[in-house]
Amino acid sequence: MQFVASEHPHRRLNPLNGQWVLVCPHRTQRPWSGQQEKAQKNELPEFDPTNPLCPGVTRPNGIQTPEYESTYVFENDFPALVEVVPVPPNNDDPLFQIAPARGNCRVMCFHPKSNLTLPTMSAAEIVVVIDEWISQFNELSAKYAWVQIFENKGAAMGCSNPHPHCQIWSCSFLPTEPQLKQERLRAYYATNERPMLADYVERELQRQERIVIENRDWLVVVPFWATWPFETMLISRNNNKRINDLTAEQRYNLALTIKELTTKYDNLFQCSFPYSMGWHGAPTGPEHAHASSAHWTLHAIYYPPLLRSASVRKFMVGFELLAMAQRDLTPEQAAQRLREVDGKCHYLEK
Amino acid sequence: MQFVASEHPHRRLNPLNGQWVLVCPHRTQRPWSGQQEKAQKNELPEFDPTNPLCPGVTRPNGIQTPEYESTYVFENDFPALVEVVPVPPNNDDPLFQIAPARGNCRVMCFHPKSNLTLPTMSAAEIVVVIDEWISQFNELSAKYAWVQIFENKGAAMGCSNPHPHCQIWSCSFLPTEPQLKQERLRAYYATNERPMLADYVERELQRQERIVIENRDWLVVVPFWATWPFETMLISRNNNKRINDLTAEQRYNLALTIKELTTKYDNLFQCSFPYSMGWHGAPTGPEHAHASSAHWTLHAIYYPPLLRSASVRKFMVGFELLAMAQRDLTPEQAAQRLREVDGKCHYLEK
Ligand SMILES: O=P(O)(O)O[C@H]1O[C@H](CO)[C@@H](O)[C@H](O)[C@H]1O
Ligand SMILES: O=P(O)(O)O[C@H]1O[C@H](CO)[C@@H](O)[C@H](O)[C@H]1O
Repeated sequence: MQFVASEHPHRRLNPLNGQWVLVCPHRTQRPWSGQQEKAQKNELPEFDPTNPLCPGVTRPNGIQTPEYESTYVFENDFPALVEVVPVPPNNDDPLFQIAPARGNCRVMCFHPKSNLTLPTMSAAEIVVVIDEWISQFNELSAKYAWVQIFENKGAAMGCSNPHPHCQIWSCSFLPTEPQLKQERLRAYYATNERPMLADYVERELQRQERIVIENRDWLVVVPFWATWPFETMLISRNNNKRINDLTAEQRYNLALTIKELTTKYDNLFQCSFPYSMGWHGAPTGPEHAHASSAHWTLHAIYYPPLLRSASVRKFMVGFELLAMAQRDLTPEQAAQRLREVDGKCHYLEK
Repeated sequence: MQFVASEHPHRRLNPLNGQWVLVCPHRTQRPWSGQQEKAQKNELPEFDPTNPLCPGVTRPNGIQTPEYESTYVFENDFPALVEVVPVPPNNDDPLFQIAPARGNCRVMCFHPKSNLTLPTMSAAEIVVVIDEWISQFNELSAKYAWVQIFENKGAAMGCSNPHPHCQIWSCSFLPTEPQLKQERLRAYYATNERPMLADYVERELQRQERIVIENRDWLVVVPFWATWPFETMLISRNNNKRINDLTAEQRYNLALTIKELTTKYDNLFQCSFPYSMGWHGAPTGPEHAHASSAHWTLHAIYYPPLLRSASVRKFMVGFELLAMAQRDLTPEQAAQRLREVDGKCHYLEK
């Protein structure tokens, strides 16, 4: 029997973290009688006087959100990380290793209107979001080793507030995922004298199997090693290292790319598509200011949980938690569906 | 300011996989207006003629489930892994690494009655479950490098069938988590000439800070590096390497320990507590038959998602997916709550 990737279980290596993913393409046929996601209400009001992220509303801590007109950034009232914190005592027991963690956590509203999302905002409005990401990054990267810009969208992704927003958590240290990436990208560069993701972009363009969106500045692919069903990577084609080295044109094209990708996501299952997404680029802060970033390529990653419809998600549970990541359709199948679905006209506008 | 672990954000190292966990104890205070879990119905019937896991019911593929009286094991109708599958072609591109995956997937019913769970089964009935785990393990470990016994319990953990059951997925390879553990345990043994988890048990017994249940054969702790809010490890105190080297007495004590731990879980938020759990021990199969297992200690891991109540769970999303694991209460706080909650009398029996 000949091996056929779309039929036969196999493993694929994620070269960015060294972990294997189990691909089980024949498994999408099984019936589902487990938990269903609730449909997200599309009927949000433009303004909700009880939502602290809306302009003019008072937050639980008494501070009033200003009457902002584009983006608005504030310190999280319940930050996971804080700037001033005592350092844990040293100890050399390898089983009880503890280390300091300093940082800060910000919330960034994308738009004053509660009932918009990135796919239903205009490209010009998304450019404003990108510009705000960059200005935040400029400020925070001076001080912190890692600035994680991320968006949790939808209740299925633990988002506790439907107003369009993202978060920015800054860390005095390199977290696990970026640390693994840093090591792997560096090792690849040492051997190949090329950034890994620049080579990857080139080969994906040759193979044309996993591409979702392709334009002059950006490539969106379902990576060969994707774990979530419709996971994508949005990769710079210009050897950008960090989000703050984008030109005005690259930023404008990024806005178009984000709008197109998230429109495709929404159209796929005709719902406001939940996901977590975030940006990865070269580490920052005083510690990394003089280190080479030649091995890095700026990219965003989208992790959407839905598998088969607006209400059936993929659960990363038992086997996935205890053994390894496992996916039910191939990255090529996911890419084809995302490529074919309309990315220009949002289903709510049809 | 003096560092206080229950107040100040810090990181802790998981020595079993080398990854750090961010601990943010001050964060449990934040209000929650996100997704709520639906309460699991307690009112399941003992027998459901539409549930293929019930005795006598016909499965979608036409096979009838026998009138079993204790446990019942069958091959999953939609297996992620299959025994005979073509091998993917070799290629040496580091960005497109693909590897074979052979195995099988079984479903194991714990009991004929649909409305029971481990905490509401008797110790004698749980012994039967353990004995079946062992007989499955004996058969499958002869052939496969890794036999993953795991239970997904509750809709929140992707469980698609409420009948009490677990799954057994066997792999021709070592999956990511066991592979990392294998390397770390081996390195620790090389340096310390002791199994890491034997040392860990000893030190937890000295410190008495994270213990939930302690008896002659088993220790249950919220590990120092726990990522899920009420995560626990159930560790052998007898230098057991694999589940099939337990004595009859150790098995009986294991049944009591499982019943006590899962009763505590259910009593914590007065609900059928969802979790994923599974067993880890020394690798198996022809490949590992002659390798030393001296560095291994048999243990089970419980990953329950609930954070603050039966309806508010912890989401591992944005920051967790993109940067690192993050938890909101300390392992010591979780251990104290689990230690103090009743483990003898189940809330449904009160
Ligand atoms: O129990 P099921 O329905 O086979 O499936 C469940 O457990 C599997 C193994 O952890 C996961 O891959 C699935 O996402 C989950 O829904
Ligand atoms: O957006 P929130 O409400 O702060 O919180 C959400 O994102 C955080 C960062 O990914 C997670 O730690 C929380 O579990 C999730 O609910």
